[in-house]
Amino acid sequence: MPDDLDPAAIDPTIATAMATAIAESVGSQGSSSPNPPVGAVILDRDGAVVGRGATQPPGGPHAEVMALRDAGPAARGGTAVVTLEPCNHTGRTGPCARALIDAGVAAVRYAVPDLSPVAGGGAATLRAAGIDVVGDVARTDAEAGPLRHWLFRQRVGRPFVTAKIASTLDGRIAAPDGTSQWITGPRARAAVHEQRARLDAIVVGTGTVIRDDPSLTARHADGHLYPHQPTRVAMGRRRLPADARVADDAAPFVQVGSHDPADVLAALPDALWVLVEGGPAIIGAFLAADLVDEVDLFLAPTILGAGAASIDIPSVQTLTDARGFSITGVDGLDPDVRIRLGRPTNPT
Amino acid sequence: MPDDLDPAAIDPTIATAMATAIAESVGSQGSSSPNPPVGAVILDRDGAVVGRGATQPPGGPHAEVMALRDAGPAARGGTAVVTLEPCNHTGRTGPCARALIDAGVAAVRYAVPDLSPVAGGGAATLRAAGIDVVGDVARTDAEAGPLRHWLFRQRVGRPFVTAKIASTLDGRIAAPDGTSQWITGPRARAAVHEQRARLDAIVVGTGTVIRDDPSLTARHADGHLYPHQPTRVAMGRRRLPADARVADDAAPFVQVGSHDPADVLAALPDALWVLVEGGPAIIGAFLAADLVDEVDLFLAPTILGAGAASIDIPSVQTLTDARGFSITGVDGLDPDVRIRLGRPTNPT
Repeated sequence: MPDDLDPAAIDPTIATAMATAIAESVGSQGSSSPNPPVGAVILDRDGAVVGRGATQPPGGPHAEVMALRDAGPAARGGTAVVTLEPCNHTGRTGPCARALIDAGVAAVRYAVPDLSPVAGGGAATLRAAGIDVVGDVARTDAEAGPLRHWLFRQRVGRPFVTAKIASTLDGRIAAPDGTSQWITGPRARAAVHEQRARLDAIVVGTGTVIRDDPSLTARHADGHLYPHQPTRVAMGRRRLPADARVADDAAPFVQVGSHDPADVLAALPDALWVLVEGGPAIIGAFLAADLVDEVDLFLAPTILGAGAASIDIPSVQTLTDARGFSITGVDGLDPDVRIRLGRPTNPT
Repeated sequence: MPDDLDPAAIDPTIATAMATAIAESVGSQGSSSPNPPVGAVILDRDGAVVGRGATQPPGGPHAEVMALRDAGPAARGGTAVVTLEPCNHTGRTGPCARALIDAGVAAVRYAVPDLSPVAGGGAATLRAAGIDVVGDVARTDAEAGPLRHWLFRQRVGRPFVTAKIASTLDGRIAAPDGTSQWITGPRARAAVHEQRARLDAIVVGTGTVIRDDPSLTARHADGHLYPHQPTRVAMGRRRLPADARVADDAAPFVQVGSHDPADVLAALPDALWVLVEGGPAIIGAFLAADLVDEVDLFLAPTILGAGAASIDIPSVQTLTDARGFSITGVDGLDPDVRIRLGRPTNPT
């Protein structure tokens, strides 16, 4: 748990601006990868919001630059509020620390320190330029927000993996005849698509592609696509139909001809957040490899009483082989319920 | 939905007393059967609580009489607040309407009208004696409380049936080697035992008795028994071991040599509330017969990936064969979660 600044010590204007910056960064999830999805807000001398921005896709401007452009001259003498310590290196874009100095901001507040050897050190550069810099502002909130998966990858060296299950009360994902569409309702489906629009990749087995022919795109209820689409990954060695929807033009597609989940993650070097959707053996393989960091369970208020179970782990023999998680959230998505679970000891 | 009195029109003293009366009646659930578990509170002339009571086991006093005894002379000129319209008939005990008249109460407030041909009519008798009587006070609350199952039996002619499931996230109730103890944690188990103490009967299959040898008693965490114990019912034709725990002296036991759930309910003519605990085929048989009014799902934050599923309905072929319910409540029972579901169109 990071050492947040005492919340009572945070100016409420800054606290509100940081919440806005975090919200702003949601729209960059997925599209910013492998860069962190950062959000920024510029306050003028009087504390009024004059600019907002979020990290653009690789090669495009970072959040601070977007927010400074939005603010224009009003940034001079003002405060930049950023979810991550401004970067210090010149990559495909110039360093954000330099842009803030050039814009003449008087103060910078950031939430999460950037510990990466390449981009870190921005706070020191800003201070050396005479700017008033404070870090760790609302750091816990920012770390639990869109930066979460990037921070995980920085620390663990692989993407954060969520396993998604949509099942009946009795854990079934399909009836004996294979029918499986619409186990959960429209609100649950909308939540799934909203999540897809923030992911780097969705993994399914080649069996699922052959049997269900899913498109795995992130779509609004009316069918039109979200701006960002995750890479669709088919795991396994089976030959896919030439017209499989996962391989259409709507989003990237890759087949990983392996049954080892580590090979799938290795094939996604830029991915921060990967969703494993199924089928049961694919989710089971990730669980057996201890590569599931979160479970996102959509439970429909129905009972089937027959048909495929949601997860299949052939090696399991006895109750002590069970994998433990801990519930981190329960949301009603009428008529369904969504239960989120994290690792029991919360290493994220 | 009953026509409750406008809540704003209810004297807050009466509203509080009715809530107390409902709470008082919880302790009579199960033990009062086949009589309704009623609660009563006596207020003196000044509105102070001077007596409380709940229905005793058959042959014992009803709630009003228990509360009047508790109040003594302070009842004279006071108000009786009762969850059910006071009974008008002389069964094994005298009519409660007569007891209230004899005690000299000036007013009676009750929640639910007693529509039964034998016991109904108490309000008219009380009014004829010059007592100020008002019904439908907090009726919705009382109907959703301990009276719920008795009201169901009055209307439908059979006990209210709850199916209890304790499973992993992936719907498993046992590992492949048969191990199944303690899938859920201590708080969920305590909730199960507290519920058992309010039930009339618990139904399991003979297979479960032979395999798991459960006692099915209602026990506190330290092992001592609750005052009321449900009848333990083994459903099926298999011969049970002579030393099976379900047949010990701790509580009644009956074996129903049938695979038809209707036969099981017919063997429990006095039961108001029956819990079906398993195994999967027994719960499946009740579901297939449309005899499940409520599902009480205790979900452990673990994944097995193999082993028996919680519910088995051999006749199910396709997704439209799924049985639909609606979620009525979600409670965290750390580390587990409890999800309650009722019939979708809420006929109760």
